[in-house]
Amino acid sequence: MDVAGETGMSEGAVSASALRRVGWIGLGIMGRPMAFNLLRAGYALTVYSRRRSSADQLVAAGATWRDSPAQVAAESDIVFTTVTDSAAVEEVVLGKEGVFAGARPGLIFVDMSTIAPAVSRRIAAEGERRGVRCLDAPVSGGEKGARERTLSIMVGGDAETLAACRPLLEILGKKITHVGPAGAGQTLKLVNQVICGLNLLAMAEGLALADRAGLDLNTVVEAVSGGAAGSWMVANLGPKVAAGDFTPGFMIKLQQKDLRLALEMAAELAQPLPGTALVHQLFRYLEAGGAAEEGTQALYKVLRG
Amino acid sequence: MDVAGETGMSEGAVSASALRRVGWIGLGIMGRPMAFNLLRAGYALTVYSRRRSSADQLVAAGATWRDSPAQVAAESDIVFTTVTDSAAVEEVVLGKEGVFAGARPGLIFVDMSTIAPAVSRRIAAEGERRGVRCLDAPVSGGEKGARERTLSIMVGGDAETLAACRPLLEILGKKITHVGPAGAGQTLKLVNQVICGLNLLAMAEGLALADRAGLDLNTVVEAVSGGAAGSWMVANLGPKVAAGDFTPGFMIKLQQKDLRLALEMAAELAQPLPGTALVHQLFRYLEAGGAAEEGTQALYKVLRG
Amino acid sequence: MDVAGETGMSEGAVSASALRRVGWIGLGIMGRPMAFNLLRAGYALTVYSRRRSSADQLVAAGATWRDSPAQVAAESDIVFTTVTDSAAVEEVVLGKEGVFAGARPGLIFVDMSTIAPAVSRRIAAEGERRGVRCLDAPVSGGEKGARERTLSIMVGGDAETLAACRPLLEILGKKITHVGPAGAGQTLKLVNQVICGLNLLAMAEGLALADRAGLDLNTVVEAVSGGAAGSWMVANLGPKVAAGDFTPGFMIKLQQKDLRLALEMAAELAQPLPGTALVHQLFRYLEAGGAAEEGTQALYKVLRG
Amino acid sequence: MDVAGETGMSEGAVSASALRRVGWIGLGIMGRPMAFNLLRAGYALTVYSRRRSSADQLVAAGATWRDSPAQVAAESDIVFTTVTDSAAVEEVVLGKEGVFAGARPGLIFVDMSTIAPAVSRRIAAEGERRGVRCLDAPVSGGEKGARERTLSIMVGGDAETLAACRPLLEILGKKITHVGPAGAGQTLKLVNQVICGLNLLAMAEGLALADRAGLDLNTVVEAVSGGAAGSWMVANLGPKVAAGDFTPGFMIKLQQKDLRLALEMAAELAQPLPGTALVHQLFRYLEAGGAAEEGTQALYKVLRG
Repeated sequence: MDVAGETGMSEGAVSASALRRVGWIGLGIMGRPMAFNLLRAGYALTVYSRRRSSADQLVAAGATWRDSPAQVAAESDIVFTTVTDSAAVEEVVLGKEGVFAGARPGLIFVDMSTIAPAVSRRIAAEGERRGVRCLDAPVSGGEKGARERTLSIMVGGDAETLAACRPLLEILGKKITHVGPAGAGQTLKLVNQVICGLNLLAMAEGLALADRAGLDLNTVVEAVSGGAAGSWMVANLGPKVAAGDFTPGFMIKLQQKDLRLALEMAAELAQPLPGTALVHQLFRYLEAGGAAEEGTQALYKVLRG
Repeated sequence: MDVAGETGMSEGAVSASALRRVGWIGLGIMGRPMAFNLLRAGYALTVYSRRRSSADQLVAAGATWRDSPAQVAAESDIVFTTVTDSAAVEEVVLGKEGVFAGARPGLIFVDMSTIAPAVSRRIAAEGERRGVRCLDAPVSGGEKGARERTLSIMVGGDAETLAACRPLLEILGKKITHVGPAGAGQTLKLVNQVICGLNLLAMAEGLALADRAGLDLNTVVEAVSGGAAGSWMVANLGPKVAAGDFTPGFMIKLQQKDLRLALEMAAELAQPLPGTALVHQLFRYLEAGGAAEEGTQALYKVLRG
Repeated sequence: MDVAGETGMSEGAVSASALRRVGWIGLGIMGRPMAFNLLRAGYALTVYSRRRSSADQLVAAGATWRDSPAQVAAESDIVFTTVTDSAAVEEVVLGKEGVFAGARPGLIFVDMSTIAPAVSRRIAAEGERRGVRCLDAPVSGGEKGARERTLSIMVGGDAETLAACRPLLEILGKKITHVGPAGAGQTLKLVNQVICGLNLLAMAEGLALADRAGLDLNTVVEAVSGGAAGSWMVANLGPKVAAGDFTPGFMIKLQQKDLRLALEMAAELAQPLPGTALVHQLFRYLEAGGAAEEGTQALYKVLRG
Repeated sequence: MDVAGETGMSEGAVSASALRRVGWIGLGIMGRPMAFNLLRAGYALTVYSRRRSSADQLVAAGATWRDSPAQVAAESDIVFTTVTDSAAVEEVVLGKEGVFAGARPGLIFVDMSTIAPAVSRRIAAEGERRGVRCLDAPVSGGEKGARERTLSIMVGGDAETLAACRPLLEILGKKITHVGPAGAGQTLKLVNQVICGLNLLAMAEGLALADRAGLDLNTVVEAVSGGAAGSWMVANLGPKVAAGDFTPGFMIKLQQKDLRLALEMAAELAQPLPGTALVHQLFRYLEAGGAAEEGTQALYKVLRG
């Protein structure tokens, strides 16, 4: 296809080999193993994080520390961010010492945090003014996926920029979807979280009913998996519930942050999400009870009582 | 235990090879292909249905028609029922012309309808008084599963009776789970439907949000399948929604019947199911709009508006 | 008033004075004080109840005991029932020893229980065949209203029969509404309970939020009463919640019975009631916790946690 | 405490009679009639609004226009604000040309907008640093209450400041509740809106069920008012629904803004509000359908279908 051809050609100018100097900002539970994977793959890595200590292992392994996102950007061909929320991304990108302050035209910026699509679009627009090419590329798959390079990566932005980054993204995850223009990656991530939330409630109500009726939960999980009631949640978190294991996995407080973003986006679009709103409120019982850092499967406890 | 011993002995008399004469009552969308599968496998088949015409093809293929469940039972080693609801099962089994009226001691009775677990337990208790051994064995997998013998069968009742029937059940489905004592098969089926209902809502809210935000639904389905948001519903019904295809699959009115049973069982157990109650109410909009015979994926339309 | 005069005239054959002999079946928490009020007003009272002892005080005060509803009916011009549910009404009215078995043509039958409108309609139809004129006349106002004769009475049936009974109903309550034909009284009662249920949830969520935010609940109740947020529930049950008093008033288990009837009626009419379904499920937490005999204001505890 | 002593003293200087010069910022549907009421009562009024034209009538009647909130504040003993949301209040108060920029120590600032309690607390804290005494004093009662001086006013802040303002507040409304410290007035207002929202849903579900069952809605409204199902919503908006009148009253988009604030406050407090979340989502259907400027009673249409 012509488009592919063009992409291949224009890519020439920013071929993968041109993206040797990689910056990484935000070295939390997700960012650290992802940055390590690029370092191991031979990329020159410059890093910044809120807490210097988060970078110790990476620096010991050969990464370079810089004191601000701007300094990281100044020495990079491509900069990735994995920080906590919209406000953190805005500060790290648009702030006085932010990525854009240090960026030269031609820089590629890839935000892999989960944030509001509207913020991703604003950053992309600002990037365009400065000649920085931006992608929003949130992931699903959790810490395990980050370590094992099995993340699913949902990308918003233009196809050429994605083509240029693809070799790096393929080191970070195994499934890369180009969803649409700027913000579309974030939108899909929030759609993903909406589905996760209600699939969790499905598991929680189903297993609570089963348990109350005296069924063995492992039998239930085994029986429903593979049929019309089958889901990743039942198959993966069902056995944890059966074992009384409510450790994360994915923390409730992070799921709540994502559901809040999804509900806010839905509000802007006038899209009713009554089920998701219910899930969000039911998780609130766990937050009220001090369980915000348990795994999302703890929703079972709200139902089972 | 003596009883077990006796049961074991009496079972000798009804070993799989002894279950040659099969009765089938209820020849609807599920029962007909299932009965055919047994006929094709070489079993002698006697049938009864509310409408005589439902049996025409089976009779043409070698089955014998009888004018009442009692007459069917009188000539069978094992009788299956696939009828619409608790009341129908009660009439067909306990009624004046019902299965038990024609049953000799030693008969095996397998109800594959989806009904209230309490009714299954009552039938099993009555069966025990009469020397009829009962299983509740509802299925999941739909008409397609019935035709292709890929049903999942959830069995309540004692293990020996199940062992005796297993060769026949293995002709009907591919996954047979012994859940527990009488009623446990039905209970699991309702748990299964609770999970299905909320997984449907997950798909409906996720895709409605995606569509409202301008994403391509096939891209969404493809991207979320296989990850933490993955489910049978998204993988199988998501593409139908994307194509605007709301034909059944599984009809809304049947899903509603099953959710009502689940909610009633939950009420008896004082088990809250707020999400399932919401799903049940949202489907109501489709019933009100005359869409009760559409497929369950039409829930999308309630969300998308 | 003229209308009253006309009513008096058309009443002719069944004028109030003709309804001297009153039967009362069901002497629970509501029926006993209501029957007493008629006895005190000078009516000849014949009674039956499931437990003979429920009638002791009434008999001591001059009422006559009979051993079946049929016997009560045989000696009465008008029979009232106040029993627990649809099944109880059906047994007491249509059963072998029921009201209709003893009724002569011309008897007036007034069911003041809260039951399914469809059952009221069936009884009215059967009554018509036998020359018994039937009203469904459920009440709201609770035990207090029954004692103090301040009940609100919602009547379904024909206007003439209501006119004939009105003098007796005016002894029992203070507000009598002729809603429509047979079943309409029950329908309005269920509508009333739907509104009560959600007004309760309004109070519960509002006060829970206020309490969590550190406001004084009595200040809140005082401030919102009389404004757009005002309701009987806030004004009457709010102070109980503020005082930590969860005694009934109206028991949760009775509210749940009424909500179940409302949801079943709504299901038949394909009317979605998502809020009512939520209320019904939230009360379930109290049933699961053994609090089904607390007052409905205990819903606050489900929200406040 | 010294501060209290000082406050007591300084209050001498700002006794009611000292509060002659009144500033009013924000002349929308609520602010304009309220400002008029003070003007009519003889207070010297200086005004500012986003659109100059909003002040025309007031200026014609004797009020003075100033070009910024700071200028208004510089010439006033007390300043009121009635603007749209938290962001508007922050700009109008804390902005470069805001109230605080022009305020002399001793000024009283009363915000009558409905905003986030946390913003009210932040403003009060900033006011304290500058010697400006702040009250949050949101109202309920709508445009009609504003015109007819029947508003209910919910006040957060210290009692002495309230005492100083009371003569003015008594011109604006008829019920003044001192709820607690800074932010408490806003908190109560949001509690009020939570109750309003669910009382609306109660009315909507009740009347939808009644209508679907064929009852006359005016009969229903009349019958349930005054009993346990009685509420301001049923009594005042029920007749509008019965008449098919969905004009505001109170606009859906404003109710939604308030519910959003309530849900955000609840999120900070980890207070579950499942019913309120449902109401918020159901109103979304009306927003999606272009009906955000209809009256809140239009929720009926979401239920009735």
